[in-house]
Amino acid sequence: MAKKKNAFYAQSGGVTAVINASAAGVIETARKHKDKIGKVYAGRNGIIGALSEDLIDTSKESAKDIAALCDTPSGAFGSCRYKLKGLAENQREYERLIEVFKAHDIGYFFYNGGGDSADTCYKVSQLSEKMGYPVQAIHVPKTVDNDLPITDCCPGFGSVAKYVAVSVREASFDVASMAKTSTKVFVLEVMGRHAGWIAAAGGLASDKKCELPIVILFPEVAFNKERFLAKVDEMVKKHGYCSVVVSEGVKGEDGKFLSDQGARDAFGHAQLGGAAPVIANMVKEALGYKFHWAVADYLQRAARHIASKTDVEQAYALGKKAVELALKGENAVMPAILRTSDKPYKWKIATAPLDKVANVEKMMPPEFISADGFGITDACRTYLAPLIMGEAYPPFKNGLPQYVQLKNIAVEKKLPPFEV
Amino acid sequence: MAKKKNAFYAQSGGVTAVINASAAGVIETARKHKDKIGKVYAGRNGIIGALSEDLIDTSKESAKDIAALCDTPSGAFGSCRYKLKGLAENQREYERLIEVFKAHDIGYFFYNGGGDSADTCYKVSQLSEKMGYPVQAIHVPKTVDNDLPITDCCPGFGSVAKYVAVSVREASFDVASMAKTSTKVFVLEVMGRHAGWIAAAGGLASDKKCELPIVILFPEVAFNKERFLAKVDEMVKKHGYCSVVVSEGVKGEDGKFLSDQGARDAFGHAQLGGAAPVIANMVKEALGYKFHWAVADYLQRAARHIASKTDVEQAYALGKKAVELALKGENAVMPAILRTSDKPYKWKIATAPLDKVANVEKMMPPEFISADGFGITDACRTYLAPLIMGEAYPPFKNGLPQYVQLKNIAVEKKLPPFEV
Repeated sequence: MAKKKNAFYAQSGGVTAVINASAAGVIETARKHKDKIGKVYAGRNGIIGALSEDLIDTSKESAKDIAALCDTPSGAFGSCRYKLKGLAENQREYERLIEVFKAHDIGYFFYNGGGDSADTCYKVSQLSEKMGYPVQAIHVPKTVDNDLPITDCCPGFGSVAKYVAVSVREASFDVASMAKTSTKVFVLEVMGRHAGWIAAAGGLASDKKCELPIVILFPEVAFNKERFLAKVDEMVKKHGYCSVVVSEGVKGEDGKFLSDQGARDAFGHAQLGGAAPVIANMVKEALGYKFHWAVADYLQRAARHIASKTDVEQAYALGKKAVELALKGENAVMPAILRTSDKPYKWKIATAPLDKVANVEKMMPPEFISADGFGITDACRTYLAPLIMGEAYPPFKNGLPQYVQLKNIAVEKKLPPFEV
Repeated sequence: MAKKKNAFYAQSGGVTAVINASAAGVIETARKHKDKIGKVYAGRNGIIGALSEDLIDTSKESAKDIAALCDTPSGAFGSCRYKLKGLAENQREYERLIEVFKAHDIGYFFYNGGGDSADTCYKVSQLSEKMGYPVQAIHVPKTVDNDLPITDCCPGFGSVAKYVAVSVREASFDVASMAKTSTKVFVLEVMGRHAGWIAAAGGLASDKKCELPIVILFPEVAFNKERFLAKVDEMVKKHGYCSVVVSEGVKGEDGKFLSDQGARDAFGHAQLGGAAPVIANMVKEALGYKFHWAVADYLQRAARHIASKTDVEQAYALGKKAVELALKGENAVMPAILRTSDKPYKWKIATAPLDKVANVEKMMPPEFISADGFGITDACRTYLAPLIMGEAYPPFKNGLPQYVQLKNIAVEKKLPPFEV
């Protein structure tokens, strides 16, 4: 790129404990290359901010506040759940994106998200070329689901995994204390509609130095009530108690979500519950064991206070690398984590072409799930263990983590409004 | 005490992130006074261990492992939910306790628990005197519910409060990022059947430097659906989103728990759910806002990884003081936290007579709840703020907290079995 251009950065989909670290990586690196990159504009609420020309001028934020993004969970500029459809059905929106980029002299598009946004990123790159306003589109990976291909892992996942492993260890200690006269089974529901990566992390709570009875329910394994109850009963009889980690996406052999049990409230309305209470009640009814259950929900992905240092570092490094790739003239690519060694854990950053990333889901390989379907294998441990390594505590003041709230000052609009 | 006696220590009721710190305080202090205190025996699974003569010889544990109790959540010797009835109805059990104490030359009884165990502790002191085998009974306060009288706060509460404040702050940042196109209301259910202390801690997530829209539902305030929905709607219209912290003990104006909505599963069985999904569905149905909900359950009280340093220190200090009081010849008392200054926070340990502690519940004072019933007042903040101050991270290895599992070696039995 001969001419200096501005950059656009947006966060997409569910946010994580470390997506802002990627934002910091992008912005800080761009600031170091002022000869080539002008301003970094962020989309307010993700790609919607680009479509509606609601851009945030990140140059108005202090270096200190941008650095503080590394310690702050959530999406500092707002995210959105908004998938651009295919080019054929939705050329209008893609064209609008290019118009906005053109109006604001944007030559770099950094899109921080999962599989859907990799797809959008790829299409923007294609269309901008076609429209005679070529934009270098670089995808920055992010998803707690850990389901992107090529990259060894996805920023956001390591921190959720650490949260789940730590929480299951802590709750297991708690249940163990209570089991004699009270709670014998603790059920924790975790995220993962399709892939069981997060549930698998619950297995890390138990290791050779600290053995704990844990039963995992993966979305990859059809739920069999009899086998599950037999497993729980065996664990309780042997250890006095057990913890169950259930993925929200677990389905019965009928293909229906466990959480959708047709429960109705007093007015006949469908009762939306989680998988955890369903599992817990099942245990109580069949085995009579007293239970407790928890649903971690957003707490797991927002838990910056117990983020994985490895995850924070990789999130930052991928944001930084995205800018470096752009400066090298790369287009339609994603920087990806390449593991070069398990023990000691070593990684570097490779470059993946976006057409190989978009819309491909990486599931748990069968060899990561134990033969009985309720645990993780040593291969899975070897894969997961480095991802939760290291602590990266945010600064605390008065007992609370200090998370930055940016000024998020809007860039003046230049175009007529656009209906999103 | 002229003659050297052994001591008995037991953990009672729901365990906490810091009850083991009190155990460490008791055991380490006793070890420093070997001229007066022989061995410290712990009850396996609380008072049941005493009744069944299942005693643990803590002298078999290394100094390192006892020190590690300060970093370990749960009850290291096991706890129980078992309330000894009144002396009249249940003289048999009290007498058995004294027999066991006598058989093992136990002259000190340290009971670590809440209101019920303060009552048991008091009765043991009375009865042992009557039976001619006087035991010095000292109660060590513990309860996440923070509902013991006289003491300014209860060990275990500060750490739950910190967990809830941190989690609500993190989840609120998350929802704020998603609110434009997705989740607008996040509901977190926390413990507190009778008193709203834990729910109140959610209010700390928002402060002058970091304002966040939070609605709190206290068990002290009868739930009014219309007023609640109006409050949520107002918050969402003003801020784009809001977080709701609901105490598990919230009741409607009919006196029924919110969580008990008469839901039935497909087979007509009562569906045990939490208050959080009920609240979340209510918001969705009335206001149409997309929601997420979480139930923290055991995670909140077991979360040693984010324990309050103040709480850990007080838990230890109270265990230590209990032994010092015993050495001074005190009986039927509880060491209690006495706050001597809010800013800077200062405290010392006073001595409370057990007959003033037993069976008295300390509720939230009305002046701690805001006029609209959905928030906390400045007076409440002043009270709560110091209790979550300071971090006391446990040691981590391979990304996981290192919690100690004791050997818990049994003391040889000397008496015939006893039916508990």
